[in-house]
Amino acid sequence: MRQYLLIPGPTPLPREVLEASSKQMLNHRGPEFGKILAEALAALRRVFMTRNTVIPFASSGTGGLEAAVVNLCSAGDTVIAVTGGNFGDRFAAIAQAFGVNVERVDVPWGEAVDPAAVRAALRRSPQAKAVLVTHSETSTGVRHDVGAIASFVRETPALMVVDAVSSLGAIELRTDEWGIDVVITGSQKALMAPPGLALVSVSDRAWAATKTATLPRFYWSFDRMKADLGETSASTPFTPAMSVVFALHAGLRLLEAEGIERRFERHRRVAAAVRAGVAALGLRLLPKPEHSSETVTAFWPPDGIAPNAILDAMRAKHGVVVAGGVGKLAGKIIRFGHLGWIEDDAILTGLRALETELRNAGADAGRGAEAAAREILVGAPA
Amino acid sequence: MRQYLLIPGPTPLPREVLEASSKQMLNHRGPEFGKILAEALAALRRVFMTRNTVIPFASSGTGGLEAAVVNLCSAGDTVIAVTGGNFGDRFAAIAQAFGVNVERVDVPWGEAVDPAAVRAALRRSPQAKAVLVTHSETSTGVRHDVGAIASFVRETPALMVVDAVSSLGAIELRTDEWGIDVVITGSQKALMAPPGLALVSVSDRAWAATKTATLPRFYWSFDRMKADLGETSASTPFTPAMSVVFALHAGLRLLEAEGIERRFERHRRVAAAVRAGVAALGLRLLPKPEHSSETVTAFWPPDGIAPNAILDAMRAKHGVVVAGGVGKLAGKIIRFGHLGWIEDDAILTGLRALETELRNAGADAGRGAEAAAREILVGAPA
Repeated sequence: MRQYLLIPGPTPLPREVLEASSKQMLNHRGPEFGKILAEALAALRRVFMTRNTVIPFASSGTGGLEAAVVNLCSAGDTVIAVTGGNFGDRFAAIAQAFGVNVERVDVPWGEAVDPAAVRAALRRSPQAKAVLVTHSETSTGVRHDVGAIASFVRETPALMVVDAVSSLGAIELRTDEWGIDVVITGSQKALMAPPGLALVSVSDRAWAATKTATLPRFYWSFDRMKADLGETSASTPFTPAMSVVFALHAGLRLLEAEGIERRFERHRRVAAAVRAGVAALGLRLLPKPEHSSETVTAFWPPDGIAPNAILDAMRAKHGVVVAGGVGKLAGKIIRFGHLGWIEDDAILTGLRALETELRNAGADAGRGAEAAAREILVGAPA
Repeated sequence: MRQYLLIPGPTPLPREVLEASSKQMLNHRGPEFGKILAEALAALRRVFMTRNTVIPFASSGTGGLEAAVVNLCSAGDTVIAVTGGNFGDRFAAIAQAFGVNVERVDVPWGEAVDPAAVRAALRRSPQAKAVLVTHSETSTGVRHDVGAIASFVRETPALMVVDAVSSLGAIELRTDEWGIDVVITGSQKALMAPPGLALVSVSDRAWAATKTATLPRFYWSFDRMKADLGETSASTPFTPAMSVVFALHAGLRLLEAEGIERRFERHRRVAAAVRAGVAALGLRLLPKPEHSSETVTAFWPPDGIAPNAILDAMRAKHGVVVAGGVGKLAGKIIRFGHLGWIEDDAILTGLRALETELRNAGADAGRGAEAAAREILVGAPA
């Protein structure tokens, strides 16, 4: 049975990316690999919409979050962190693990932060070294308005640091225009590569901060990583995840062929289609629609229906793999991922499977999820 | 032109491994991936020759070294480190970066440490938390005798920690029998997978040490990583480098089909063949032959010959990629890697290319490198 992978990453990989993943090894310090890595980093700068250096760590996205903390902060520093989801909480927990004082701007799971609350926190803690915000909070399907937050953070000494692991390349994020100092993403989300690389852009203000930050660091050192990242040939001090770099290089080529602005638009459309399908079933979104992420849609099952049984049936009978809840929402919600390389077919199959299995479970749910989504995807009635 | 990659990692990958690298993504928290990861970890325990848990970090091997330091030590602790090569120096530098006091047992580059010198250092620093030793010092081609060192370290409170990044699965290393507490390796060396995973085995003594070690850690936390590593299904708290896990799973299957003892023997034979070829050319090894690593052979070029010009010609004219020196040996030596998946053909082609290009450079070198190596490889005169 064909598998339809509709989780918020790792995402299905296009054929070109899978082929690139199986390229034979090269000398990681030689000219061929140096050119591939340099080209990938140049493409990444365009996708990040920045002129800043982008650093490629061999790690998961969480490694990139840790790198941001240890390069920018000293023990005893204060940071402001937007929490209220698994990944916002994680970013705060990393800072705390390193002895950084975390002022939380906590929002209920499923709500977007009010930028005014972050501004108030900055007024209370004007010495804050950084503001940590998750762009797309994958655990709740919420998009936080990092543009609005950056617009006042940039006027303060605090650095604006954005976890864009599940958004970059899919949801509008204009690093330089918005004045974001550090942006972290992972290879396995909208960039259409396998997991294994964390990618981190670093502004001049952030580089300046690294000079006085005293948290211990070696593997995550921005300075050490930057040393040999040239324009035409790049290398890293520690062996890079080469097959993931090959794949990322191929994925970025596809991404740029589509175009970044068209990509933002496509993710908006696909997310709207999934929301329309969910609405047709009479199901309630976890976030308000206007705060719902373009890469993952989180919604409640019908009353009295256990989501995990639905997910199991979707997987076993339809080959459709969607995600349940995590953290305090484990076993409570369903999350439909739709980022990177998604074919309309997969979205429609996923909604059809959901509708069928809700009905099989005896749920009092609506009908016509597929048709509602199709109308938005193809711009015409089914 | 076919490329013959004869560097000490990343190593060429067998067809089965390349195919596995291009497997489509799965749910990283689902049952299919859980089984693949659990099977790979079970195979790794056999290759590590241990019953200890093996932890898979998404990182380069250096990340595994950092993980060992931050899980075992507190700031102000003392460790004893064998230095005298790029990687021994790196391990010491990591410990120092985290505020650990490093007592160096320094050996000249190209020499193996005298175990008695480590024993003396332990007597001078009986409070030492750990002894850090590089098994195969890739920068100098030296194999340190970790078995002999472990035999007395295990009688003390100090933990025995071995960087086996370029040795595990190729050079005899009996983790449990020798009493080694922490062994670190990387996916891209003898295990025949792409780079992107650090693999770390942790003994009961080492787990006990993590309870009192206070260095800050999040991404590298052994505890956090171990939580869901089950016997039949395994998952990691942060997205694993899935395509590298697929590849590693395939590489381990090939490794186990060959058999670990036969593998040790094959690497001994191949290393002897390369040394015989180098000797036929009248070239001098950097280490004493009895300390020469089974995974990389380091030797001096003929007097008056710049190795990098030879390497360039070997690459351009023969497709043979061997390594030069690093650190204080940069531009001074040649390093011939031979670990993991190496065909006799590649070794012989490499030696032939070396001989030809030395002659083209006007070097006063011997002849018959290929024949000397072939005699050892196939056990009969050419």
